[in-house]
Amino acid sequence: AQMGMLFGDEEQPLLLSVRSGAPVSMPGMMDTVLNLGLNDQTVEGLAQLSGDRSFALDCYRRFIQMYSNVVLNVDMEVFENIITSYKESHGLVQDQDLGDENWTFIINRFKKVVEHETSEPFPQDVQTQLLQAIGAVMDSWMNPRAISYRRLNGISEDIGTGIVVQAMVFGNQGDDCATGVAFTRNPSTGEKKLIGEYLVNAQGEDVVAGVRTPQSLSTRYQNTMKEDLPPMEVLMPEVYHKLLAVSESLETHYRDMQDIEFTLNKGKLWILQTRSGKRTAQAAIKIAVEMVEEGLLSKEAAILAIDPKVLDQLLHPVLDPAEKTTVLTQGLAASPGSVSGIIAFSAEDAVLMAEEGESVILVREETSPDDIEGIHAAAGILTSRGGMTCHAAVVARGMGRACVCGTKELEVNEDKKYLKIGRQTLKQGDAITIVGQTGEVLLGRYNTIRPEISGEFRTLMSWADEVRRMKIRANAETPEDISVALEFGAEGVGLCRSEHMFLEKSRLTSMRKLLLAHDESVRKGALTELFDIQLNDYTDLFTSMQGLPITVRLLDPPLHEFLPHNDLEIENIAAVLGLSSRQVKERVHELKEANPMLGHRGCRVGVTHPEIYRVQVKALLAAMVKLQAEGTPVVLEIMVPFIASGCEIKFIRQLICEESDKIKEQNKLSELKFEIGTMIELPRAALVADEIAQYTSFFSFGTNDLTQTTLGLSRDDAASFYGAYRKSGVMGSDPFETLDRRGVGQLMQIALEKGRRKFPGIKTGICGEHGGDPRSIEFCETLRLDYVSCSPYRVPIARLSAAQASIRSKHAGQDVNLEATAHSLSRCG
Amino acid sequence: AQMGMLFGDEEQPLLLSVRSGAPVSMPGMMDTVLNLGLNDQTVEGLAQLSGDRSFALDCYRRFIQMYSNVVLNVDMEVFENIITSYKESHGLVQDQDLGDENWTFIINRFKKVVEHETSEPFPQDVQTQLLQAIGAVMDSWMNPRAISYRRLNGISEDIGTGIVVQAMVFGNQGDDCATGVAFTRNPSTGEKKLIGEYLVNAQGEDVVAGVRTPQSLSTRYQNTMKEDLPPMEVLMPEVYHKLLAVSESLETHYRDMQDIEFTLNKGKLWILQTRSGKRTAQAAIKIAVEMVEEGLLSKEAAILAIDPKVLDQLLHPVLDPAEKTTVLTQGLAASPGSVSGIIAFSAEDAVLMAEEGESVILVREETSPDDIEGIHAAAGILTSRGGMTCHAAVVARGMGRACVCGTKELEVNEDKKYLKIGRQTLKQGDAITIVGQTGEVLLGRYNTIRPEISGEFRTLMSWADEVRRMKIRANAETPEDISVALEFGAEGVGLCRSEHMFLEKSRLTSMRKLLLAHDESVRKGALTELFDIQLNDYTDLFTSMQGLPITVRLLDPPLHEFLPHNDLEIENIAAVLGLSSRQVKERVHELKEANPMLGHRGCRVGVTHPEIYRVQVKALLAAMVKLQAEGTPVVLEIMVPFIASGCEIKFIRQLICEESDKIKEQNKLSELKFEIGTMIELPRAALVADEIAQYTSFFSFGTNDLTQTTLGLSRDDAASFYGAYRKSGVMGSDPFETLDRRGVGQLMQIALEKGRRKFPGIKTGICGEHGGDPRSIEFCETLRLDYVSCSPYRVPIARLSAAQASIRSKHAGQDVNLEATAHSLSRCG
Repeated sequence: AQMGMLFGDEEQPLLLSVRSGAPVSMPGMMDTVLNLGLNDQTVEGLAQLSGDRSFALDCYRRFIQMYSNVVLNVDMEVFENIITSYKESHGLVQDQDLGDENWTFIINRFKKVVEHETSEPFPQDVQTQLLQAIGAVMDSWMNPRAISYRRLNGISEDIGTGIVVQAMVFGNQGDDCATGVAFTRNPSTGEKKLIGEYLVNAQGEDVVAGVRTPQSLSTRYQNTMKEDLPPMEVLMPEVYHKLLAVSESLETHYRDMQDIEFTLNKGKLWILQTRSGKRTAQAAIKIAVEMVEEGLLSKEAAILAIDPKVLDQLLHPVLDPAEKTTVLTQGLAASPGSVSGIIAFSAEDAVLMAEEGESVILVREETSPDDIEGIHAAAGILTSRGGMTCHAAVVARGMGRACVCGTKELEVNEDKKYLKIGRQTLKQGDAITIVGQTGEVLLGRYNTIRPEISGEFRTLMSWADEVRRMKIRANAETPEDISVALEFGAEGVGLCRSEHMFLEKSRLTSMRKLLLAHDESVRKGALTELFDIQLNDYTDLFTSMQGLPITVRLLDPPLHEFLPHNDLEIENIAAVLGLSSRQVKERVHELKEANPMLGHRGCRVGVTHPEIYRVQVKALLAAMVKLQAEGTPVVLEIMVPFIASGCEIKFIRQLICEESDKIKEQNKLSELKFEIGTMIELPRAALVADEIAQYTSFFSFGTNDLTQTTLGLSRDDAASFYGAYRKSGVMGSDPFETLDRRGVGQLMQIALEKGRRKFPGIKTGICGEHGGDPRSIEFCETLRLDYVSCSPYRVPIARLSAAQASIRSKHAGQDVNLEATAHSLSRCG
Repeated sequence: AQMGMLFGDEEQPLLLSVRSGAPVSMPGMMDTVLNLGLNDQTVEGLAQLSGDRSFALDCYRRFIQMYSNVVLNVDMEVFENIITSYKESHGLVQDQDLGDENWTFIINRFKKVVEHETSEPFPQDVQTQLLQAIGAVMDSWMNPRAISYRRLNGISEDIGTGIVVQAMVFGNQGDDCATGVAFTRNPSTGEKKLIGEYLVNAQGEDVVAGVRTPQSLSTRYQNTMKEDLPPMEVLMPEVYHKLLAVSESLETHYRDMQDIEFTLNKGKLWILQTRSGKRTAQAAIKIAVEMVEEGLLSKEAAILAIDPKVLDQLLHPVLDPAEKTTVLTQGLAASPGSVSGIIAFSAEDAVLMAEEGESVILVREETSPDDIEGIHAAAGILTSRGGMTCHAAVVARGMGRACVCGTKELEVNEDKKYLKIGRQTLKQGDAITIVGQTGEVLLGRYNTIRPEISGEFRTLMSWADEVRRMKIRANAETPEDISVALEFGAEGVGLCRSEHMFLEKSRLTSMRKLLLAHDESVRKGALTELFDIQLNDYTDLFTSMQGLPITVRLLDPPLHEFLPHNDLEIENIAAVLGLSSRQVKERVHELKEANPMLGHRGCRVGVTHPEIYRVQVKALLAAMVKLQAEGTPVVLEIMVPFIASGCEIKFIRQLICEESDKIKEQNKLSELKFEIGTMIELPRAALVADEIAQYTSFFSFGTNDLTQTTLGLSRDDAASFYGAYRKSGVMGSDPFETLDRRGVGQLMQIALEKGRRKFPGIKTGICGEHGGDPRSIEFCETLRLDYVSCSPYRVPIARLSAAQASIRSKHAGQDVNLEATAHSLSRCG
């Protein structure tokens, strides 16, 4: 009372710090108010008690600054400007140069500014200060930047923040005082060595604010260029070793690398806060694996400690962090990888430029199956339209190309070959860089780095393979893709999209002949051509499979995708067929559809044009028989797409069996072993799965199309309203990225329940994009699917995710701490 | 044995007739073989026994003809040619002129022909004859024409046919012999009076074959022009009265109008067959109502006796049956009504030509919302593309216009304004006739007849209204439509598609301003314009409702449907907005969608452009408040389309409530009563109906879109593969016509179960096209929906169907006979 200090008691009067207890700091969260409890009276008490009036006034002006900013929303700059102009007008350089009188003057200016800005005097009542500060820190949880950070990092809105109210200790009370931060291991590399920074005679925000250059803790990480004071290890070795000991015991206690805030007051070390530290993917893996070796973590905990999504950082090139970038705009981070290259506006140009040895970025409004060779030739793809599972995104992920799509600010003029982003116009051949991990589009070229795959990575993956129950397959169509997939640990191909074979130019002509010819003999000839092509392709594919299972999906896309698209193509095919351009045009127009997604595709083509499916099946079986005769094992599963009813699969099964019987007869075989299964990609297929199960030996959930139909949401068109949906909170995560459990997942459950009731041993898997998404894979484990299939570059993610899902399912409801640990551990930078 | 006659015994030797016991005769079913048991031996026995060798030979040659045709697949014409050329070369005119020797010669020729055609002699073994005949009649059930007949008439494949083997009685044994058919009531008008035809000295097939002109039974129906013999009533009054008495007792026994086949042999009357007779819609209703009055049927049985689909015949013009038609081609019978008119190839032309007083047939490849005024102005619509629920079909049914769509042989050149069907080319202004009941397209004009609505019809409908549980509403947007609907007995409007208001030209401009303007003040102005327009429209609509409930659906179609479609429109709107054509074009292109059906529509527009939904709600509530203040009751239900999640409806509900609060405040009202509900038209909406039910007071099943998404089937594109599906037996009935119970129906059940669990009293209805389909309405009754809503012209069908469904549900499993009777009764011509 004597000192007017209202917190603590007379023996031990207190100032307080109020900070957020959120598990991670989030951008935009103003989460700390220091020196709380000071007012015009108590500042005198502090001066008296500390015997250092200058120190007390420094604390008071700091408090007014932070409190006014965090609680009263006064711009920090206002205060900084006052100090700067005061120092300038008085010829002073550093804050330390300011004494009692200067601070008194400045504090009065501060209070006037606050009263002017808020129409209220700066609050003198310390209880009010405390309640207001707690309220403000609470509220900052809903700060727009914090919301957007949580959304991007998949942190739930619901966890909320706690408030930590601590007694102040002062790092600004002389040269035996300091404040700093320490990581128990190196967050960039994972190396086991204390690393961090500190500032003598300072408070916490000085380290962050960058007014003075902080010093290293240890000699090991000393940056000699910037240092004007020696590292703590040298300057105050006792304190350093104390900090080292405390850090180690904190890490051992929490079984995770810690991010620690500390203050040194008159030689005494205070730990203000400790929490799990953010880290790179590489560091995360090294730390987890080493902690197992140190006995700190079990293998299971180590597996759970890694967010599978960060593996992308290890498998794709990243931007060199040293580069200063010029960001032109941002789209959706559709396929990871950071690449620089020159712009091409058409698939043809991309191929030509790539042949000249250029790294090419194919820029289009959106891509179509016609662009497949261009996408293959390009290093990266940039589109103005489309969502996370638009054509460009799916194909790019499949081929391991970087891709940014749905870039709303990007205007593409494909005819005149230029693009505009805001006022910037770029033309063919100009250089840009796309960052597939973030969706950023940069002007010019930048250095990128392909991270090395470490021994720790291999160790972790081998542990994952030991515990996972689900098999991992890949979606792949070419021997090259298959070899990437097998290298990454795929145990089979879960989706080989046979239509990709027909999109290459010479094949397209055969296909067009088949669809457009009026003359039966031309059609027959086209079928023979298609048979020969496919026989070769499948022989190569099956050989590259090395005896692992491969699921080949019969033709799926709408027929009109195979038709000529421009006048030149129309003239060419018309000449081949001896028809007039007009006839071809009319036929093409006839095949155009209002909603191709819901049109004449999948098994519907098999019903209307059985000869196409027959030739596919014939080629598949002939290739298998040929290789088996040579002693090469082939495990073939034929998959029928877009089934909606038992009648359809019965019809197609019949057709397949007839072709099989013919091949058996021709080759005098008593048996021909292969499986017939279906995609479950329409709501009706899920609802009548019991009917369908009678004619199939496996179900593969095609969750891309199942999501489109269940939600009535075209993945190519959704970009136009996703933004508004996110902003208004109407939509959580992108249902094309993470499986919608309530809707699509419910249909999967219905399908499995009905299918298994009719055919208990039915094999089940997923081959939509969700097969490479960790949260979706976890759901697949709860459904007890037999395998997930994903694009080759996602195979490691799927292996780790499936292992995590196995562990969680084993411990479900039993080991909450394991979960909690994994949760905090998984936040990687 | 003496006679070599193997059926019967010596006292009473028999020949047999073998015929199908199918409940109706089907085209293509060769269902009768008469005189079976004759061979070279038994024919002599018959000659001896009858004492008339000429008669016996006549029977034998008849047998060889029919047996060879039905069993051995020998063309009937072969035999007819032999007789004809024989008669010509011998100067004979009638079959009666042929004597023993002629027949012996002809029979030998017949046998040689059979041996030549079948490589086997004509079978002499009568057991073989019998077994083969039974087999052939059985097999003819699967005759393609019979299959197609059953499909068209909704007769199950499974019921199969029985075989009736009877002893022959001979109508061809002299002038005291005859054969004929009789209906117990007039199948055209329903009048209660025996009507039919007979032939003296003939067998059954002579009546059908038309070789001789049959005579009338009674004087009443005598056609004096054609008769060369007096009617039976005059010629053989005793037989006639005997037939009358038998007919009456058969009708009383079966409680239905009977179609009777009889034979007179030497003065003795034999009844060969009786079954329920085919009849016109008018007759069906008159017979059913009169049978109730006669005490033959209960009211419930009378209601069940009428196939609701035939009511279409009573509500729409039909082709004058007297007309000889030239059929150009056939499409899908999309909307009933037969109309003649001159061809227009654009909506604009249709409007202009109609203003000049012409009856116009609008011919297009397919229609879009832009054509709405043209469809309204036209008497009928003919399209080359689209299925039963394409845009043209839906709108035409809604407006009561005749429509034939999906006419594959029709080529339309809208630019050059001509059409081609095969080699026939027609241009604007040429006359055609479309028959919406059958899908036929005729060359030139024909007389059509609008049937009168009879007293019996009104009686039947009043009985139906007494027993039905479900309410009947109509889908209607204009006061005219509403007045038609109310006249037909609708009890409310279940679907008022608000977007129809914006498609009229001046409104379209306001809408375009809203969507395209860069300038905020222009957008605000457009909103005000739209508010004023809607306030007027809703005031008119609500007034015409006379206090009955009306469900107004907020804007549903994709935004791009409102945008300019051609250069002229683009220039116009660009001028209004002060933008360049290029800017407008770019924006339009930006809004174009790959799959508009699954795109930016429904409540998604409400989320991205809340101002549009707000102005709609504001206008709706303002109109309601205004009318209520004047004492006009308004029962308003606001319906939100395309909901997929609880979050969406929560968001839109919030917006509606905010507008409601504003109106309450402005008008100083303590309460504003209206309901908020959703369409359930996406699989996900059904799957999360419990979430959605928390924010709604009613569910309306939008089964058109629910069918599209559940089956992954675009109704606009399905026509291209429906044909192959039907032919291959992969698809039964059209899921857009009759609700797919296994798939879509299962989702409805899930939605109802979840919705009712969360909100037991939730009001439920259906507003898709299925709301006017009898089989689907029956399913709605089993789901215990509260109402069905259908196009105004289908309201009577829905009333009757709902009544039938109520009765069936009441008697479910309890009164099988009632069902069976109804089943046979319901087959109308």
